[in-house]
Amino acid sequence: MADDRPPRKIILDCDPGHDDAIALALAHGSPAIDLLAVTTVAGNQTLAKVTRNARAIAATFGLTGVPIAAGADRPLVGDLIVAPDIHGETGLDGPALAEPTDPLDARHAAELIIDTVLAHQPGEVSLVPVGPLTNIALAARLEPRITERVGEVVLMGGAVGPGNRTPVAEFNIWADPEAAHIVFGAPWRVTMIGLDVTHRALATPQVRERIRALGSGPARFVEEMLAFYGGAYRTHQGFSAPPVHDPCAVAYLIDPTMIATRRAPITVELAGAATRGMTVVDLRGPTPAGRHRVALDLDADRFWDVMIDAIARIGADGG
Amino acid sequence: MADDRPPRKIILDCDPGHDDAIALALAHGSPAIDLLAVTTVAGNQTLAKVTRNARAIAATFGLTGVPIAAGADRPLVGDLIVAPDIHGETGLDGPALAEPTDPLDARHAAELIIDTVLAHQPGEVSLVPVGPLTNIALAARLEPRITERVGEVVLMGGAVGPGNRTPVAEFNIWADPEAAHIVFGAPWRVTMIGLDVTHRALATPQVRERIRALGSGPARFVEEMLAFYGGAYRTHQGFSAPPVHDPCAVAYLIDPTMIATRRAPITVELAGAATRGMTVVDLRGPTPAGRHRVALDLDADRFWDVMIDAIARIGADGG
Amino acid sequence: MADDRPPRKIILDCDPGHDDAIALALAHGSPAIDLLAVTTVAGNQTLAKVTRNARAIAATFGLTGVPIAAGADRPLVGDLIVAPDIHGETGLDGPALAEPTDPLDARHAAELIIDTVLAHQPGEVSLVPVGPLTNIALAARLEPRITERVGEVVLMGGAVGPGNRTPVAEFNIWADPEAAHIVFGAPWRVTMIGLDVTHRALATPQVRERIRALGSGPARFVEEMLAFYGGAYRTHQGFSAPPVHDPCAVAYLIDPTMIATRRAPITVELAGAATRGMTVVDLRGPTPAGRHRVALDLDADRFWDVMIDAIARIGADGG
Amino acid sequence: MADDRPPRKIILDCDPGHDDAIALALAHGSPAIDLLAVTTVAGNQTLAKVTRNARAIAATFGLTGVPIAAGADRPLVGDLIVAPDIHGETGLDGPALAEPTDPLDARHAAELIIDTVLAHQPGEVSLVPVGPLTNIALAARLEPRITERVGEVVLMGGAVGPGNRTPVAEFNIWADPEAAHIVFGAPWRVTMIGLDVTHRALATPQVRERIRALGSGPARFVEEMLAFYGGAYRTHQGFSAPPVHDPCAVAYLIDPTMIATRRAPITVELAGAATRGMTVVDLRGPTPAGRHRVALDLDADRFWDVMIDAIARIGADGG
Repeated sequence: MADDRPPRKIILDCDPGHDDAIALALAHGSPAIDLLAVTTVAGNQTLAKVTRNARAIAATFGLTGVPIAAGADRPLVGDLIVAPDIHGETGLDGPALAEPTDPLDARHAAELIIDTVLAHQPGEVSLVPVGPLTNIALAARLEPRITERVGEVVLMGGAVGPGNRTPVAEFNIWADPEAAHIVFGAPWRVTMIGLDVTHRALATPQVRERIRALGSGPARFVEEMLAFYGGAYRTHQGFSAPPVHDPCAVAYLIDPTMIATRRAPITVELAGAATRGMTVVDLRGPTPAGRHRVALDLDADRFWDVMIDAIARIGADGG
Repeated sequence: MADDRPPRKIILDCDPGHDDAIALALAHGSPAIDLLAVTTVAGNQTLAKVTRNARAIAATFGLTGVPIAAGADRPLVGDLIVAPDIHGETGLDGPALAEPTDPLDARHAAELIIDTVLAHQPGEVSLVPVGPLTNIALAARLEPRITERVGEVVLMGGAVGPGNRTPVAEFNIWADPEAAHIVFGAPWRVTMIGLDVTHRALATPQVRERIRALGSGPARFVEEMLAFYGGAYRTHQGFSAPPVHDPCAVAYLIDPTMIATRRAPITVELAGAATRGMTVVDLRGPTPAGRHRVALDLDADRFWDVMIDAIARIGADGG
Repeated sequence: MADDRPPRKIILDCDPGHDDAIALALAHGSPAIDLLAVTTVAGNQTLAKVTRNARAIAATFGLTGVPIAAGADRPLVGDLIVAPDIHGETGLDGPALAEPTDPLDARHAAELIIDTVLAHQPGEVSLVPVGPLTNIALAARLEPRITERVGEVVLMGGAVGPGNRTPVAEFNIWADPEAAHIVFGAPWRVTMIGLDVTHRALATPQVRERIRALGSGPARFVEEMLAFYGGAYRTHQGFSAPPVHDPCAVAYLIDPTMIATRRAPITVELAGAATRGMTVVDLRGPTPAGRHRVALDLDADRFWDVMIDAIARIGADGG
Repeated sequence: MADDRPPRKIILDCDPGHDDAIALALAHGSPAIDLLAVTTVAGNQTLAKVTRNARAIAATFGLTGVPIAAGADRPLVGDLIVAPDIHGETGLDGPALAEPTDPLDARHAAELIIDTVLAHQPGEVSLVPVGPLTNIALAARLEPRITERVGEVVLMGGAVGPGNRTPVAEFNIWADPEAAHIVFGAPWRVTMIGLDVTHRALATPQVRERIRALGSGPARFVEEMLAFYGGAYRTHQGFSAPPVHDPCAVAYLIDPTMIATRRAPITVELAGAATRGMTVVDLRGPTPAGRHRVALDLDADRFWDVMIDAIARIGADGG
């Protein structure tokens, strides 16, 4: 995109995960993003697996000098339930994984988040959590000052319409509803990029052909991931092309006009028997003031243009 | 409608209420409906008020010889909370109310429902609850045989999308979630006509002009109701034209092709802090077998044609 | 007991069940009780089984001319879960069961309760539910006037200290918490005779020897029940002698001085993950005014004197 | 006490609070305790107030060289609700407060706990939380290894019998039930010293006379606290002498024979409408194996002997 803003400084908190890996590609490849740190959280798979995956992806994409720290190995209150149906036993089934190059940061993810936010100016750093919100919640409770200092939290999670893990709950929020409650309850601005948007970011055959055509190592890696991930989505959720959820949150920071949003109060249901982990979005009446924003639509063509451009840029110097 | 089926025998369980009154007009006026009984339940207003309103409406519409019985004066488990913002202090603010003619049936609504269902053949009688489901739940618990004998329960209530009483809950289900849980859990077939449909049954100025043009007493009564009800909806929920919820359930029995439905499992949330009273509809994956059907769309033009025809027919011999 | 009061008129609502049968013996045999009706409810076993048991017990004890009506075949909201570990597959394992003599009353238990209460003076009839409270709750919701007319509800159920079905919940309340919520929430006076008392009504070897010594058919029947019931309590709950819960509620009406009580607000937990079905009794601070009374202690010697006297009186003319 | 064990190394996590201050006196004064660190948590009052109070108490008692770190300023999930009725607006109303001497440790309480536990041998350090369990829960989630390394968690909180904040919930657990759920769910051993015990640790007139007789500055400070605290307990909870809850947890580590305990599974209710924050203790059946232990009785005479001895020892060199 052609705008004059300096790159957006972000911390990507993730649980790779195929679409997490694609979000990493976008954050690393896009000139509009300055990726300050990567943190990992148990979700799609165990903490050990997603952390290894994050480091392998970084090696494959030539992402060096950016600290990677491991975080929570389980949700705040509930039990850990991972998603091998979608992401396989490794959490990143499909491509061969590279050996990590950079060492793991010694800090807990929450500490790395806190240190990074406090080391920058107020409003300068945005958080982009694309897994369960455990690390973000821990950071907010450990150092409440960051909830006044972060520019914005743009998270992949939740849904206004149908869920994926339950009829009304999306996996990331369902996986740690108490953490989500903490994140939505803190004073920072939160934009929720949920299934209503991400189910429109489909890696169609045409999209995959464009990625293949890039011919680079990173492109090949992405395509190998999409092969497994697409099959899993076909088998387990009946999608003809797989939705790549997590890069949508990065895309919103690259160009917010790509995603239609509106303000709306958002509450996370903690207690429901059929609704635990649901994001309750109040869309009634006139648009209110408030710190919550919900994403409702995606310009999929522009999304894929930006995405493929980023993969292409990695191809020039990564893997 | 021009079909060869005999009229559908129904019991209308209601809490008039403006749109309840219009549902009564439709059930009484339509040649496709054989209205066996009317039962009342606390909801839009107290039991005493809605029962008086039901009898007054019957007198206005010339509905005689059909038993009217009062039922539950409060929800099964929760407290009674009425809706004076939408229906006024009387529950039917606007028109002058006639003196009732027929005496009230001595039985409890649940007993009248049981007696009527057992007096007919299996599958012959359908229940059309358009208020909180307390009476239907009591009847099902008092005489479980009716849950095998009723043809179908077609209820106005619930929502897939936004609610009206809370961000995700519709008033009738929210008002007695435990009763709704009982109704959706019983072995009979249940079709849920929720806000997704009824918010398309708008009494627009064009519609109201057509009703006025009928010139009859009943038409005048309906128009006087719509004047108050439209104002209340404009003030309290920001609608430019008021949705007439309850007749949609009757309309579905008159002509099911007027309303698009699909099978889907439906659960009522009893325990949620932000979701109590929500109808959780599982729309994921392929359409399942099962006893639940959810309405998703309405042919509003045909709906109003059928509605206005029914009012016209009442006009010929009623009020 | 030697007091001048006329016999207390009661309706016994039960799910026999061994201790229910003993409660029936006490209510039938004691000159201080005028047993107006017996109603049955699913609980210890299915409705069909407990109803057959009630009629067999009546035949054995020579209880004729007292209407017996079947009621709810399942809880209001939850699923039916019976207690074969304690009461066996028949609900009354142990003794041979007699053929019923009197026909079953055609009314639903709730209707028999309503009719009986309304046929007597205000305050004249007391309800003694010793199973899940489903029938009482249905009666209260069908005819709210009884909640102003009943003398007192004396129920067996609940606990201040440890529960039996869960760490904190007693079986009868746990089996239908919503019904219990309705009963404790109605305007009548409620006295809760819970496990804190009934676990002191132990059928010790000495007690059983006194019953055996009566030598009558009813006494033999009671002893045969205690043989099975005592074994079940030993095996499944580690009691050396079995507690006879249900007759304690009848005993309180025979002579309230036998059971120490105090006023205390009582709430039934409906929503807890570990506490659903718990009776939350507020024993803090000074004794409040209010309609709830909780039983805390039992004079076991007097209890068994009254109990054995009643069995002896049945022996004279029953079975 | 005269035993040969080396002093027990503990971290006291507290929210002073009058009884917290007395727990600090006991931990500091008793030769059986080696107080490694003091951490503070919002509870009886805000974090700022209880942290200032902890530092003032340390100055008064001559407690120097022991790190004091501030922790959570609010519960994990719920809202902060403090207890000014019992502890006054300052959290320590009554005595004049000294100026702190030592600087506050820069780390978050959870970090100080983690560092301290990891710096010692497995099993060497015990945690003694006597406020809401927020810090302990945060530490367990940030560094799960401590849950295998801590010797024991001995907490003041919970109740088997009546609660104080609600009919069934004690203040510390009620204030942060999710944190308590985390603490009871972790693999370490947990001993719960609840109201069943602490309501027997009453600062009677005789006790207070013994403290006054010590004549030292610290004794005077304790007595001035008890004057306010006793009045608050008399006014708000009807106690003739105030219970000093928090030192009971320290006393158990000084001499476990002073407090009768038994093994029992303990669950924290998170979801109940009337029971949220209750400790559900399963006392049914034979004593099970397991990591949870519940305290049931206190030898109050020995408790006060140990307590007064500790205050006397502080008097020799403190304040």
